[in-house]
Amino acid sequence: MKTRAAVAWEANKPLTIETIDLEGPKAGEVLVEIMATGVCHTDAYTLSGLDSEGKFPAILGHEGAGIVREVGAGVTSVKPGDHVIPLYTPECRNCKTCLSQRSNLCTAIRGTQGQGLMPDSTSRFSCSSETVFHYMGTSTFSNFTVLPEIAVAKVREDAPFDKICYIGCGVTTGIGAVIHTAKVWPGANVVVFGLGGIGLNVIQGARMVGADKIIGVDLNPSKVAMAKKFGMTHFVNPDEVGRDKVVQAIVDLTGGGADFSFECIGNVHTMRQALECCHRGWGESIIIGVAPSGTEISTRPFQLVTGRVWRGSAFGGARGRTDVPKIVDWYMEGKINIDDLITHTMPLDEINTAFDLMHEGKSIRSVVVY
Amino acid sequence: MKTRAAVAWEANKPLTIETIDLEGPKAGEVLVEIMATGVCHTDAYTLSGLDSEGKFPAILGHEGAGIVREVGAGVTSVKPGDHVIPLYTPECRNCKTCLSQRSNLCTAIRGTQGQGLMPDSTSRFSCSSETVFHYMGTSTFSNFTVLPEIAVAKVREDAPFDKICYIGCGVTTGIGAVIHTAKVWPGANVVVFGLGGIGLNVIQGARMVGADKIIGVDLNPSKVAMAKKFGMTHFVNPDEVGRDKVVQAIVDLTGGGADFSFECIGNVHTMRQALECCHRGWGESIIIGVAPSGTEISTRPFQLVTGRVWRGSAFGGARGRTDVPKIVDWYMEGKINIDDLITHTMPLDEINTAFDLMHEGKSIRSVVVY
Repeated sequence: MKTRAAVAWEANKPLTIETIDLEGPKAGEVLVEIMATGVCHTDAYTLSGLDSEGKFPAILGHEGAGIVREVGAGVTSVKPGDHVIPLYTPECRNCKTCLSQRSNLCTAIRGTQGQGLMPDSTSRFSCSSETVFHYMGTSTFSNFTVLPEIAVAKVREDAPFDKICYIGCGVTTGIGAVIHTAKVWPGANVVVFGLGGIGLNVIQGARMVGADKIIGVDLNPSKVAMAKKFGMTHFVNPDEVGRDKVVQAIVDLTGGGADFSFECIGNVHTMRQALECCHRGWGESIIIGVAPSGTEISTRPFQLVTGRVWRGSAFGGARGRTDVPKIVDWYMEGKINIDDLITHTMPLDEINTAFDLMHEGKSIRSVVVY
Repeated sequence: MKTRAAVAWEANKPLTIETIDLEGPKAGEVLVEIMATGVCHTDAYTLSGLDSEGKFPAILGHEGAGIVREVGAGVTSVKPGDHVIPLYTPECRNCKTCLSQRSNLCTAIRGTQGQGLMPDSTSRFSCSSETVFHYMGTSTFSNFTVLPEIAVAKVREDAPFDKICYIGCGVTTGIGAVIHTAKVWPGANVVVFGLGGIGLNVIQGARMVGADKIIGVDLNPSKVAMAKKFGMTHFVNPDEVGRDKVVQAIVDLTGGGADFSFECIGNVHTMRQALECCHRGWGESIIIGVAPSGTEISTRPFQLVTGRVWRGSAFGGARGRTDVPKIVDWYMEGKINIDDLITHTMPLDEINTAFDLMHEGKSIRSVVVY
């Protein structure tokens, strides 16, 4: 079949809208009509050429929502008409990792997904006979896309696509890190480094589970109003307290240190601050941000020996098919706010504007509506 | 009163045996006759002058066992005649950390203990009118010593002092890291870096809780026989597999990586290997070894984002008064082996020989018997 898609032909060039060829779903695969997709920093990172796994030409996009239109042989968990959110972290429920019940990082199709291919090692996309690669197993910048059955989460049908698409990445990454990775407890003191989209979702996750102090750290005071709306109780501006005094400021504010800190920037220096501002004895720091390749985190081992814990979170520790539908429910029940995070919507033709708004710091999240 | 003690007058000099003056216990304190004491690397570290908290002259020693001979006003939990193990990590059961139930690092007397003083900011020791400092709140290289009530664990009276003194530090540090800090589960694959006394206790802790593979890593193959006796199932010699291939060797041996690793050397390079040999998704690395001051651990944050966890352990995460008596029971019931770890015993007069044996790598543990 034919479908419209935004194609990344090479690094650092704007996407172009093309009519491309899409092969139908093979066994264990589903065809999904994408109704809306967010544009995320990770798409921009790959488009920049810095992502060592990035392949071109490719159809980017990994934060979508849509409707199943066709299923391949053997597909049993979804049927045409079902509303779904594509999962860049699948959930096969059969691999060593899924069966461990200790991690969401399903390995069933990791090899081919990293190569921009479907599990049978081929691509379903082509343009004028040239192969176009998949991206993160999702390629939501195409109006129609093919995914493995294990990489779609079935969600309720009354939820608006142009909002719940954000649950496909940013919302789940932030809220999930709080509830699945950190397991923040009621009354805990929480620190969030970086008040972008992920940071705001960490903040509302912390509020949802009953955190006490929720301290935001950011260089940009214009982010304070929105962060407070989502639950931030205190703000630390490193340029005001002194960039080398951030840890002490947080220790003072919390009476000893944070119970949990979340790094949502992707900077190895703030990752260190995030660890060291944690409470001696039990404070845990969770790395969410993606640091530039080649950079390393460091600290004195004494920080760990005296009880701090350093961990990371990917896709919020969420098992996509199991947990994503619950987050959609929470949105529909008003437990979490997504509407205020989606600052811009646009048609596919204007997708490059979404990247511009992101780079200019003017958007929290832009959503393309097909 | 007068007592005999080994005094460290200055860094890097042998201890000298002196008859010193000891003030009796004040309110909340107890006088303990030390019957036996281990000599530990931490004593040697402080004696070397590298410990920035080290003060001289001092009476070192923190791994003892003895009998309460007198109690100060208000002491209720022990009485004269009780057998006790001194605790360099006390357990007050009232400070923020004890009440958190999330850490063993009681802070009740941390300030004065670090200064070589009792909680009232004075020393009970003097020699020819010169003040001699306490050490780690214990000073077990003195035949009689004074401790706060919260810093002694009451233990059963049929346990031999010359063996259970080792529970005052090394045994608890190793076994506790397995059961309290890591919470190793039955069937887990465990890697232990460094087959000294701590490493051997980690190994027997892992065996006790039902670990599957227990892999030892050490440059010295002469340690293999003893480690196997304690439960090691596989051995990796970095000089045989290649020092830069240790991580891969462990990943291969475990079919993907360790569920838990323990660093018992105190080297920041092996700390990194210990983290990176852990299984993607859930592997946890526990730092036990004390690294040289000023050194730092580092890794790519990707290691954490993909599910590895970095933590540390001090005194095995054990709450001294609560957990140490249980470990004494386990020794008496034959669940753990201490006898084979105590390779040398000697009278106080020969305590410098214990340091020599340690530095020459000839002992696992030397014990001074009063």
